[in-house]
Amino acid sequence: MSDIVTAGILVIGDEILSGRTKDKNIGFIAEYLTNIGIDLKEVRVVSDDEAEIIAALDALRHRYNYVFTTGGIGPTHDDITADSIAKAFGVGIDHHPEVVARFKERFQGAGELNEARLRMARTPEGADLIPNRMSGAPGIRIGNVHMMAGVPHIAAQMLDALTGTLEGGAPLLSETVGGWIKESEVADILREVERTHDGCQIGSYPFFRDGEVGANFVIRSTDPDALRSCIDTLCEALGEAGFDFTPGGV
Amino acid sequence: MSDIVTAGILVIGDEILSGRTKDKNIGFIAEYLTNIGIDLKEVRVVSDDEAEIIAALDALRHRYNYVFTTGGIGPTHDDITADSIAKAFGVGIDHHPEVVARFKERFQGAGELNEARLRMARTPEGADLIPNRMSGAPGIRIGNVHMMAGVPHIAAQMLDALTGTLEGGAPLLSETVGGWIKESEVADILREVERTHDGCQIGSYPFFRDGEVGANFVIRSTDPDALRSCIDTLCEALGEAGFDFTPGGV
Repeated sequence: MSDIVTAGILVIGDEILSGRTKDKNIGFIAEYLTNIGIDLKEVRVVSDDEAEIIAALDALRHRYNYVFTTGGIGPTHDDITADSIAKAFGVGIDHHPEVVARFKERFQGAGELNEARLRMARTPEGADLIPNRMSGAPGIRIGNVHMMAGVPHIAAQMLDALTGTLEGGAPLLSETVGGWIKESEVADILREVERTHDGCQIGSYPFFRDGEVGANFVIRSTDPDALRSCIDTLCEALGEAGFDFTPGGV
Repeated sequence: MSDIVTAGILVIGDEILSGRTKDKNIGFIAEYLTNIGIDLKEVRVVSDDEAEIIAALDALRHRYNYVFTTGGIGPTHDDITADSIAKAFGVGIDHHPEVVARFKERFQGAGELNEARLRMARTPEGADLIPNRMSGAPGIRIGNVHMMAGVPHIAAQMLDALTGTLEGGAPLLSETVGGWIKESEVADILREVERTHDGCQIGSYPFFRDGEVGANFVIRSTDPDALRSCIDTLCEALGEAGFDFTPGGV
């Protein structure tokens, strides 16, 4: 795998698009990926519609090293993620014996292991399971696609179960410098420092707090020396221009 | 405009993809659109990269009635949304006289109206302004694209300023029925009730709360009579199958 490892996220669900449910998975997965040196490049949110899911999945999986989907893996009629993934990969879908066995152990009462529950045991041919200790439906991995739950604490647990199986690039390092500074007054400094430090990006994040305006500047690089040099230059330039700043941010 | 009015959201910003900032705009805009009868069909999140912004913008603006962008409208080097929109539309970009006049009134101190601040006054040719009473950069509307701030309370205020200018379809109505019911045990009922009620969708949203499993079923339709009939049928079917349920949800 090249030095830069990329990923896309596909969030699936009408409830997110209607605003009824507020997504919490994007931020969580984004943070997780950043920490292990995987560069999240794109996120898409689509409805519970097979054609939409397949189109978005194909766009992301052919372009990035990893894809993570959330949502649509429950037992009801609107849970069509596994079927859509199978179609995208052009493979069949069938009950996974390991999941069926686990369900049989778990749902022993009369009628408990019904058709709907069994539906959650269906996995695309050739897919591996991602353990799910918290609810019925397992996650799956097929090719570079990881299908996870929509419920945030289950998705988090599935992501956790993937630890060690995802190959990251050089982790992106970041440091923050901030101050009660109007970003518009230091825009030239930021641009110039970024321009003269290859491999470093500077993000500027203004805020309003207690009626005052400030900004944090986040410097990112995979190269610790370049990062250090960029921060030093930025701090020097801010100091010379008469700005107070706080390493670590405010 | 047809009965169904659609929209896409384009969130722009490395800080969202790195997980450093958690997006709050998607949920807010989604809810706003649902309330005025606009059907949000897709969301994309891309980095502060001109080619990525233009590609995503073109995909969304040609497909949906409205597009809303958030982020990248500040004064710093990584704020390139207005330029990217101008390029996507194939128009020039220049300082907007109205914004420059407003800035001149606001920033009267020596050097206050610097190059960086003036940069925020640049708007694509032919764009209308979306008022922004809270900070420097205005939002803009060009064609079906609405460019808004990334900071949530400013984006919210800009969206508010658009009220009355967006043409909605028949508003999507929704009602909720819920209970301490395992969704897998009522999956057949949900599927069958949805199938026999044209123009109605039923979403199933399971939850874990206080150690118990439950689910809310959200019935959506633009037709109030169809919605009523669908809810009645669902409640009847749940009752006949021996489930306790609560209109309005649990």
